Amino acid sequence: MKELVTIRQAEPEDINTIIILIKELAEYEKLSDEVIITHSDLEKALFSSDSFIKVLISEYNHIPVGYALFFPNFSTFKGKPGIYLEDLFVMPEFRGKGIGRKMLEEIISIAKKQECGRVEWSVLDWNSAAIEFYKARGAKPLKEWTIFRLTEDKF
Amino acid sequence: MKELVTIRQAEPEDINTIIILIKELAEYEKLSDEVIITHSDLEKALFSSDSFIKVLISEYNHIPVGYALFFPNFSTFKGKPGIYLEDLFVMPEFRGKGIGRKMLEEIISIAKKQECGRVEWSVLDWNSAAIEFYKARGAKPLKEWTIFRLTEDKF
Repeated sequence: MKELVTIRQAEPEDINTIIILIKELAEYEKLSDEVIITHSDLEKALFSSDSFIKVLISEYNHIPVGYALFFPNFSTFKGKPGIYLEDLFVMPEFRGKGIGRKMLEEIISIAKKQECGRVEWSVLDWNSAAIEFYKARGAKPLKEWTIFRLTEDKF
Repeated sequence: MKELVTIRQAEPEDINTIIILIKELAEYEKLSDEVIITHSDLEKALFSSDSFIKVLISEYNHIPVGYALFFPNFSTFKGKPGIYLEDLFVMPEFRGKGIGRKMLEEIISIAKKQECGRVEWSVLDWNSAAIEFYKARGAKPLKEWTIFRLTEDKF
């Protein structure tokens, strides 16, 4: 059987699929108990008139098997916009087929078109497969920086 | 003399001031050689019709002494928007007066109004004064995550 990998933009009909994939990503990251996103949360985030978020869906023989969700950021030093890749996920049983790479290249190509200065994302330290994959593409870990998070219970 | 600290939104007239403050931040972070932002870069980023970036200016006795630049992000696990604080800076000679804290509280209050799930930012590991300040406010370092960056020369 021929293997067909396609990448396309998400449509409103994909919301439930994306939520399933978000939950699979969380399971992979051992963070399942943090997932509380609903259909209406994601619909509002992706398809309201002021949405700034984009999602790509990857399909393997017409079945959705991965997604990438990203939005703009900005470098004050460069004076240029960038892309922050919040999630890039391919279901474990469909890895090794270049699907994640294809989504990443699509995002890089969008960044190029938008004259961005950088694409950034965060990786869990134990995820060495991902780290090797990203380093091989030329990405550098910002080792001297730590992300701080203030959650809404502390607002 | 009475000490008056005020926080206000940036106006187009503030662009040169913000660029000076960005350069002072870069000097403090020992990253001065990375700063190439121009007046027109910042004008476009902050004041074009599709801008997603906000800047607060802090003044001490009517003199600008600090700024905060931030934009939205999104948590796929929570299904909620957040705020990413790209820069928070107060000129060294005006620290210890609660100016940085006042800007941070203003951003937290904006996050609350917008029903955000989190406010996030990145801190250099050697900047222990900043780290203590953020921890005291309830922020947690995401120690197990590393930011990866792909710069435009690798696109």
